[in-house]
Amino acid sequence: MQIASPANPRIKAIRALRQRHERERSGCFFIEGIRLVAEALQTGAPVETLVVAPSLLRSDFARALVVQAQTSGIPLLEVSEAVFSSLSQKEGPQGLAAVVRQRWLRLEELRLGPGDYWVALHAAQDPGNIGTILRTADAAGARGVMLLDHCADPHDPQAVRASMGALFSQGLVRASFAAFCRWKAETGCPVIGTSGQATTDYRSLRYPLPFVLLMGSEREGLSPAQQASCEQVVSIAMTGRSDSLNLAVATALVLYEVFYQQRSL
Amino acid sequence: MQIASPANPRIKAIRALRQRHERERSGCFFIEGIRLVAEALQTGAPVETLVVAPSLLRSDFARALVVQAQTSGIPLLEVSEAVFSSLSQKEGPQGLAAVVRQRWLRLEELRLGPGDYWVALHAAQDPGNIGTILRTADAAGARGVMLLDHCADPHDPQAVRASMGALFSQGLVRASFAAFCRWKAETGCPVIGTSGQATTDYRSLRYPLPFVLLMGSEREGLSPAQQASCEQVVSIAMTGRSDSLNLAVATALVLYEVFYQQRSL
Repeated sequence: MQIASPANPRIKAIRALRQRHERERSGCFFIEGIRLVAEALQTGAPVETLVVAPSLLRSDFARALVVQAQTSGIPLLEVSEAVFSSLSQKEGPQGLAAVVRQRWLRLEELRLGPGDYWVALHAAQDPGNIGTILRTADAAGARGVMLLDHCADPHDPQAVRASMGALFSQGLVRASFAAFCRWKAETGCPVIGTSGQATTDYRSLRYPLPFVLLMGSEREGLSPAQQASCEQVVSIAMTGRSDSLNLAVATALVLYEVFYQQRSL
Repeated sequence: MQIASPANPRIKAIRALRQRHERERSGCFFIEGIRLVAEALQTGAPVETLVVAPSLLRSDFARALVVQAQTSGIPLLEVSEAVFSSLSQKEGPQGLAAVVRQRWLRLEELRLGPGDYWVALHAAQDPGNIGTILRTADAAGARGVMLLDHCADPHDPQAVRASMGALFSQGLVRASFAAFCRWKAETGCPVIGTSGQATTDYRSLRYPLPFVLLMGSEREGLSPAQQASCEQVVSIAMTGRSDSLNLAVATALVLYEVFYQQRSL
């Protein structure tokens, strides 16, 4: 049976996932669009419910996804076009969405393999940056992103959109900076930070795998104490009037340096 | 005299600058925050009006900016806290904003100097990307950004915020792609494009200065015809499940390769 009322309690519960506290309470988040839903299904993400507006569903690929999801036992919620639009934050809704369970790895149990590298973000505030960093991390062969202290939510709709599905293939960890330091001491994993004041250029360092690339927040960067906790701190050269780069851009530059160093081995 | 009504016609006219059509009609845009206003004044941007809420203005630096602006004859609009908040789109308004005249360079008159490089964006849709690209272009020593065919507005509040003031130091051009091709033919300036399908890696090319880096839109990239119009097309390697990078990230990677090649000469 199709749900036709935007005030239906199940629809209201899904709409509430726009709010971070509701995502944290439920441990779920909402994704929409054919591409994202396909990525979730193909990577085996824990999809709780598929939300489908049959009248909006125009592509054969999307219809095949629905059949595939049903075959694997994922519950289907059929909704009217109006209800789907009440959930959607996208222009031109495609009639396919899903509620997905969040997956967090436990830092205490995390051990990096010999060729692994991760990104750790301290107090990153912009969900778009976090999504873009997930997307770039995936493209550059990193394994995942650690969110230290109070960061924006990687399951925020803006982060999900910016990640272009990389949310489903990258590992996610959240922890305090103190817990991160304990983990580092316990595992002996090298940490490399960035700072405008560092004297080592990010292109002159040979990155030791495994390692974690630690990036400070958009406003503050890494504190002196955080920098002191790193094995190395590198800087990115700049000219012009700017005194810093966008966080996702700075992270991408270092990740790509690591990636190309690995490729040329 | 202080304006205390948010419905004051001058205030309404400033608020209307949130709309693109109003920015285009007036040729002006709105900036807010101490840092951005300082950058506008220091780079000699054509500031039409300084908007000040004295009760919100807490820093000596900001007060000195106001005096400096008055000395150089820039009209001052004093407003109440409530009026300022009605204009502001920022959390924690700092009491300082400005209306600035847009500056566009004419493509037909533009000639690149021997060491210059520019970015050209085709149909870029995300104002945040355009702002971030301006910020990175400034940091990497590029001279400006050309916006080809229908792009988002670099004077959109989101673009202005993301540019972190680089809007005032980078040159800006808007033109059709056809006009860009005519300019290229006339000046003989090499154009280097990017595409996931290109066989030349972006790190293996020696970038010939002057040149223009041409980037396609977020969704479509460069069309085959656009690629064919380039002297060279380079690709950025990727692994993982992604098939593309964020536009601002991809642009940053190539710009930084150019920047570091120049530095090592």
